Amino acid sequence: MAEAYVQVTTTTDSRKEAAELARAAVTGRLAACAQLVGPIASTYWWEGEIESAEEWMVLFKTTTDCFADLAAQITEQHSYDTPEIIATPVVAGSAEYLSWVREQTTG
Amino acid sequence: MAEAYVQVTTTTDSRKEAAELARAAVTGRLAACAQLVGPIASTYWWEGEIESAEEWMVLFKTTTDCFADLAAQITEQHSYDTPEIIATPVVAGSAEYLSWVREQTTG
Amino acid sequence: MAEAYVQVTTTTDSRKEAAELARAAVTGRLAACAQLVGPIASTYWWEGEIESAEEWMVLFKTTTDCFADLAAQITEQHSYDTPEIIATPVVAGSAEYLSWVREQTTG
Repeated sequence: MAEAYVQVTTTTDSRKEAAELARAAVTGRLAACAQLVGPIASTYWWEGEIESAEEWMVLFKTTTDCFADLAAQITEQHSYDTPEIIATPVVAGSAEYLSWVREQTTG
Repeated sequence: MAEAYVQVTTTTDSRKEAAELARAAVTGRLAACAQLVGPIASTYWWEGEIESAEEWMVLFKTTTDCFADLAAQITEQHSYDTPEIIATPVVAGSAEYLSWVREQTTG
Repeated sequence: MAEAYVQVTTTTDSRKEAAELARAAVTGRLAACAQLVGPIASTYWWEGEIESAEEWMVLFKTTTDCFADLAAQITEQHSYDTPEIIATPVVAGSAEYLSWVREQTTG
């Protein structure tokens, strides 16, 4: 992870849990902000069948330095055994916005 | 593409087609999961005019190894002449989730 | 930014403003297309309190060459003092689609 900032994604099957994951990350200064998107419709294999489920996506804006702690907190708090937790790099951005992300996560 | 995992995005103008693209990718083991987001509102140039259309977005989680085959399948199945097909890199993630993505796409 | 194409994200608290940001970027040839996603629910710190707000997300597909001008236009047009403006790289894609993005932004 050469980039200094990342967007982290997780999904879960209740809006309430998605909101709790968002709030816990921001409260713990592990992300500067968290955005709930949904409902979304997810399709995947489960025990030999293709399933579809309604889910909510949470997008966290944070520093690369915070990623490991944020992923650990999501893993512990999440109701799934193997939740989606992925990070995509931020290769450019508004300097003021990125400074704000850093301040919020080190505050 | 130095990263081992990617998120692939396409969009289309019917929810039914979006769901078919999602299901075909998962059925063919070209993505571990696919997520429908929408409706979204797209704005773009079309024959000299700015158009707006309602669309649905499909996000596929897969390996970099699967990208070319997934893109080829989307291109063949999609009703548009030039559909959006882009890949963004996954630079970090839960090790268990990424292993699950790999298992689903080599199963 | 080693990649030639990026997806740029911003958010704002009204659908009308999101649509105006989308249209202005496409009209000015600073993005080939812009997609409105929402409403989304954002959680963040504001003056010592955790706030939640309804927002709309705009995703712009463009070239890396256009990023600085697009970011400058969003900053000027946006009603927030420090709007989110981040770019994530496109590491692969349909050659035809990426050519279309380049044509639209140099037209």
